[in-house]
Amino acid sequence: MIGEQDLSLTVDLYELAMAQAYQAESMNGTAAFSLFFRTLPRNRNVMLACGQTEIVRLIEGLRFSDDQLRRLATLERFQPWFLDWLARFRFSGTIHALAEGSPVFPQEPILEIEGPIAEAQLLESLVMNYIHLETVMASKALRLKQTAAGRPVIDFGMRRMHGLDAAWRGVRAFRLAGLDGTSHVQAGLDFNMPVRGTMAHSFVQAHDDEMAAFRAYAHLYPGTTLLVDTYDTERAVADLIRWMTACPDVDIGAIRLDSGDLGTDARQCRKALDAAGFRHVRILASGGLDEDRIHRLLSERAPLDGFGVGTALGAASDAPSLELAYKLTEYDGQPRLKNSPGKASYPGRKQVWRESDRQGQYIGDVVTARDESAPGQPLLLPVMVGGERLSDAIVPFESAVAEAHHRIARLPEALRGLAPASYPVAISDRLSDLRQTTLTRVSPPIN
Amino acid sequence: MIGEQDLSLTVDLYELAMAQAYQAESMNGTAAFSLFFRTLPRNRNVMLACGQTEIVRLIEGLRFSDDQLRRLATLERFQPWFLDWLARFRFSGTIHALAEGSPVFPQEPILEIEGPIAEAQLLESLVMNYIHLETVMASKALRLKQTAAGRPVIDFGMRRMHGLDAAWRGVRAFRLAGLDGTSHVQAGLDFNMPVRGTMAHSFVQAHDDEMAAFRAYAHLYPGTTLLVDTYDTERAVADLIRWMTACPDVDIGAIRLDSGDLGTDARQCRKALDAAGFRHVRILASGGLDEDRIHRLLSERAPLDGFGVGTALGAASDAPSLELAYKLTEYDGQPRLKNSPGKASYPGRKQVWRESDRQGQYIGDVVTARDESAPGQPLLLPVMVGGERLSDAIVPFESAVAEAHHRIARLPEALRGLAPASYPVAISDRLSDLRQTTLTRVSPPIN
Repeated sequence: MIGEQDLSLTVDLYELAMAQAYQAESMNGTAAFSLFFRTLPRNRNVMLACGQTEIVRLIEGLRFSDDQLRRLATLERFQPWFLDWLARFRFSGTIHALAEGSPVFPQEPILEIEGPIAEAQLLESLVMNYIHLETVMASKALRLKQTAAGRPVIDFGMRRMHGLDAAWRGVRAFRLAGLDGTSHVQAGLDFNMPVRGTMAHSFVQAHDDEMAAFRAYAHLYPGTTLLVDTYDTERAVADLIRWMTACPDVDIGAIRLDSGDLGTDARQCRKALDAAGFRHVRILASGGLDEDRIHRLLSERAPLDGFGVGTALGAASDAPSLELAYKLTEYDGQPRLKNSPGKASYPGRKQVWRESDRQGQYIGDVVTARDESAPGQPLLLPVMVGGERLSDAIVPFESAVAEAHHRIARLPEALRGLAPASYPVAISDRLSDLRQTTLTRVSPPIN
Repeated sequence: MIGEQDLSLTVDLYELAMAQAYQAESMNGTAAFSLFFRTLPRNRNVMLACGQTEIVRLIEGLRFSDDQLRRLATLERFQPWFLDWLARFRFSGTIHALAEGSPVFPQEPILEIEGPIAEAQLLESLVMNYIHLETVMASKALRLKQTAAGRPVIDFGMRRMHGLDAAWRGVRAFRLAGLDGTSHVQAGLDFNMPVRGTMAHSFVQAHDDEMAAFRAYAHLYPGTTLLVDTYDTERAVADLIRWMTACPDVDIGAIRLDSGDLGTDARQCRKALDAAGFRHVRILASGGLDEDRIHRLLSERAPLDGFGVGTALGAASDAPSLELAYKLTEYDGQPRLKNSPGKASYPGRKQVWRESDRQGQYIGDVVTARDESAPGQPLLLPVMVGGERLSDAIVPFESAVAEAHHRIARLPEALRGLAPASYPVAISDRLSDLRQTTLTRVSPPIN
């Protein structure tokens, strides 16, 4: 397994190769790199930028150990003077970041990293990997939470998430996005997310009689949730009602449906429970749920009181990746730009300004040069200077969660729905002009 | 970050809750759980089962520390006697597994785990998460490798992979599936995969002149690959040819195209290079590639000599999850089954038999009861008995890779293509009969 001590080699080879080349050319000027995306993934009206707090901490601690340098030497690509440089490596630059859980849109930097070019180049893939996971997960979770319209949404995704780090850090992102619980014990404990769980089909199957399984669980866990679809949902619920009627002390909090036609089954179960006087027993649904299915179920007024979501959430199945770019925008005081077809970006250090209406709802952003001003609040704030984290940047997770939920509440309603909706992001005139002059400089027209 | 010591709490709450309930009921019988999937994901003709060797090692070492037990106690759900039981936990059961890199099809167990029911239940989510990642990644990589028809395919996926564990262990899976290299330095070193990398656009942008960037790289890295699409591909290649012509000592191995119309650009570049006598300079492609795009490029005879694949590989974008199930199939000597609509499975301990033709090509499988026999080779072999790994199960990774490649070569041709193709998997009569009798026992028809 990979640990914090391995993060300096969690790097793409070309970053080390470029760092050596910059050094070989004595290119020690300051570079500015920007982490942003050019287009939203399909089905996403907004992304929630997450992971910034931790990655800045990890960057601060990034070092190359003797053992790592010995291993690098075996690649026969790096010269002794460069390995010596790596041995002394310690990121010495400046980082500006959006606050965690900030809604973010195309062309808006999530992080801007400035420092000696070789140092800043080395961070590329680690930073992208780290921010990508939490941002993709939080953004998916937001859709699910908004669709559930106030009903609890629980993360059941561990088994489908891509590896152990994703399953664990995903929960951090889910909490920032507003989910209500997780089945992942360690992640729940670490990120102060309620830990939830019911029973698996195996528990019912292991008993010779379904009711014996229900009785044992209810006895041990008052208020528990019983999984009723192992054999025949209608029969299971009828048996359950008979038992609860006969034994008024029995305390069942909910039943869970995990297969079949969830809407029809929920209506039948609700009717049977209500008719027998068990209006307080809730009905939870799981099994192949995603936001579209939840939306349909709720549109049909299926009497469902909460949702457990696994695969669709854990793998962010409909949009499992975000085309984050880590682009050089300035070197040695000069704005920089590439001009590959279809991959335009803007040069120079930037700021993002977000304007709100009187009710506090966000109404539009402007991306400007860093030292420009625009209406609204500036979103990119310094979190590291001279390689050291600023104390303001060390936000306790509980504060970050509260602030993220506050920001989500300020998003325009349409953006939180499932229908495609767009949010206005303008580029300042100065930035547009800078793009034109930079393009002409770096790639003059052929005559 | 999460480490090996955290794996015992990398568990879904319901597994701990069920384990406590089994103990409370004195249910200490032996359970058999089977890890399998019911249907292939879209776009997949076959999956490569990966991750078995390591997960068995991790299961052998799974323990609950005092600190973990203290944290569990804070959930106010577990009783002191159960925490004591966890303190003594050590998996004592038996595991059968497919060899790593085995082609696997619906209804075929990847692992069968047998042991006291509470112990085997606790492993559910960890085992699923662990096998899921590598199996999903290897299966995607196989498609890319087969489509590239002998040309090298390099993993550029770290930045899009879901977290640090996925980026690292993904490379292990890619190697089992036959990819040719990775950009991920640590993973390449750890899994003996060639580490590859060229340059990023930032390297070109940081120089005031594109040729200055090329000269510096070529000087430092003879035989290097130059990225030619930062500003204007045609002009970059023309400049490069002029320079190579003027300086015959310059050693450029390849150029890389990362955007635009890769087929058209590759043809133009090839023509220009060939006309100038640089037939040996290869053309590599990257940038939004997946197996369909590679297939189209090669069908159009685009002169491409290798591919770097990022997003599509790293997030397995078209099929980022596999519906692995971990199902109880036997408890206390009795076959077990659930009957949730659309989620059928077969009871009892199983074996998979794979038959080959005279040329060694696989022609069909039969899933049988464990103690049945059928034509071909049995694929599920014991890897752990009484909680201890068998020495046969500790396969050196290099052997596992060689064996996996040998097995891939034995797959029917059609299965390795992009068109949907199916492979015959039969269920033995005895297993089908057992399913019927078990269903009737556990869920008799309502009269």
